[in-house]
Amino acid sequence: MLFMAEQKKLSIISFSGDFDKLTAVFTLATGAAAVGYEVNLFFTFWGLDALKIKQGRSAVGKGFLPKIFGLMMGGIKNAPVSRLNFAGLSPRIFRFMMRKKNIATLEELFDAARLLGINFYACEMAMHVLGLEKEDFIPEVKDVIGVASFLKISENGQTLFI
Amino acid sequence: MLFMAEQKKLSIISFSGDFDKLTAVFTLATGAAAVGYEVNLFFTFWGLDALKIKQGRSAVGKGFLPKIFGLMMGGIKNAPVSRLNFAGLSPRIFRFMMRKKNIATLEELFDAARLLGINFYACEMAMHVLGLEKEDFIPEVKDVIGVASFLKISENGQTLFI
Amino acid sequence: MLFMAEQKKLSIISFSGDFDKLTAVFTLATGAAAVGYEVNLFFTFWGLDALKIKQGRSAVGKGFLPKIFGLMMGGIKNAPVSRLNFAGLSPRIFRFMMRKKNIATLEELFDAARLLGINFYACEMAMHVLGLEKEDFIPEVKDVIGVASFLKISENGQTLFI
Repeated sequence: MLFMAEQKKLSIISFSGDFDKLTAVFTLATGAAAVGYEVNLFFTFWGLDALKIKQGRSAVGKGFLPKIFGLMMGGIKNAPVSRLNFAGLSPRIFRFMMRKKNIATLEELFDAARLLGINFYACEMAMHVLGLEKEDFIPEVKDVIGVASFLKISENGQTLFI
Repeated sequence: MLFMAEQKKLSIISFSGDFDKLTAVFTLATGAAAVGYEVNLFFTFWGLDALKIKQGRSAVGKGFLPKIFGLMMGGIKNAPVSRLNFAGLSPRIFRFMMRKKNIATLEELFDAARLLGINFYACEMAMHVLGLEKEDFIPEVKDVIGVASFLKISENGQTLFI
Repeated sequence: MLFMAEQKKLSIISFSGDFDKLTAVFTLATGAAAVGYEVNLFFTFWGLDALKIKQGRSAVGKGFLPKIFGLMMGGIKNAPVSRLNFAGLSPRIFRFMMRKKNIATLEELFDAARLLGINFYACEMAMHVLGLEKEDFIPEVKDVIGVASFLKISENGQTLFI
């Protein structure tokens, strides 16, 4: 501790599946990784939706109810904005504004996060409730972990819940 | 600091009264307590609803307006989901899914939190605004505190706002 | 580190423009500043709305789409409550309840934050997306910064995302 410079660390519990909050997650994550931080993203509940391979409103998950939730959630490309959503119009306007301003869109930030070596973790319990399996997620998901492991991974750093 | 191993600490400001967010609060809290963390939960605003003795939509609180809010809020058993709530159907589906999968429901997590010796604090200011008194809460509420005390309690640990 | 007492630090990413969450931001911020903390507020997305000079629903921002968002957002005086908003009635009830109880209202907390020397930062990227310039904000905004700078400013303290 006293003799070696520890790598700085940012860990985010990505709970929300909202477009604007996911944008915040990936902006913070890529920004931190770009300046040398170790970045750990722990996806849980609605946030798990961002990790699904099969994007769009698809019946992913085993069992009837998980399928219903899968159909209602639409993956990262259909993530709604947390406010003023206007039936899906608002995320499109944001995407348009971001593209016009040459700012990375959510999908680009997501790709950047993968390239920057950010660690993606999926929450075991939420996957179990929603009937999702590791195979339903993009291969970049490093591990399926529980709370105890996440606390261990995130200790001695900054941790946010978004 | 250098000679004694400090107990790890997780503190959560539980602001939201949403079913899914409360589930996140108690999952993190019990998970952390189970691996030896000191856990402090600071309930404020909508989060205070989870601590009420009189569950269900009841006119708790002194004065007309607090009573109105008390009636609208329904306690931990009526907590809505932050998204896709469908007039209260969604929490029931979640509960059903959690029970089917043998995962602890919110009420069970809540009970586990009490058994694990997690510290419950209620926010003085929010109680004052909402016209709530310590007697309106479950006896496990250790203390009614303000921001300064919470900061002191939570320092040198991980702190989340949920 | 070993010989000097570091000033305690609280940093908040103020993402939400909701009345209740902004109240939480400013209650925590002023409470921390009052007991000697260094407090840094980083406003982004909807949170930027709280910093606008031109309060009320006004077409601030360059370009057509930013103006639309400016009109829809109403500044700190029109911030909606995140739940049970009832078309703007709820914030008024809260204000009424807070005034009746002699608790600082959001505007008073905001003014207190300025007097207490709390640091206000605006998020560069979000300003760019929303077409906002530094001149659109109150003069207390110390700087327009990005994620890397915020991480530097907030390190070794408690950081919350609200």
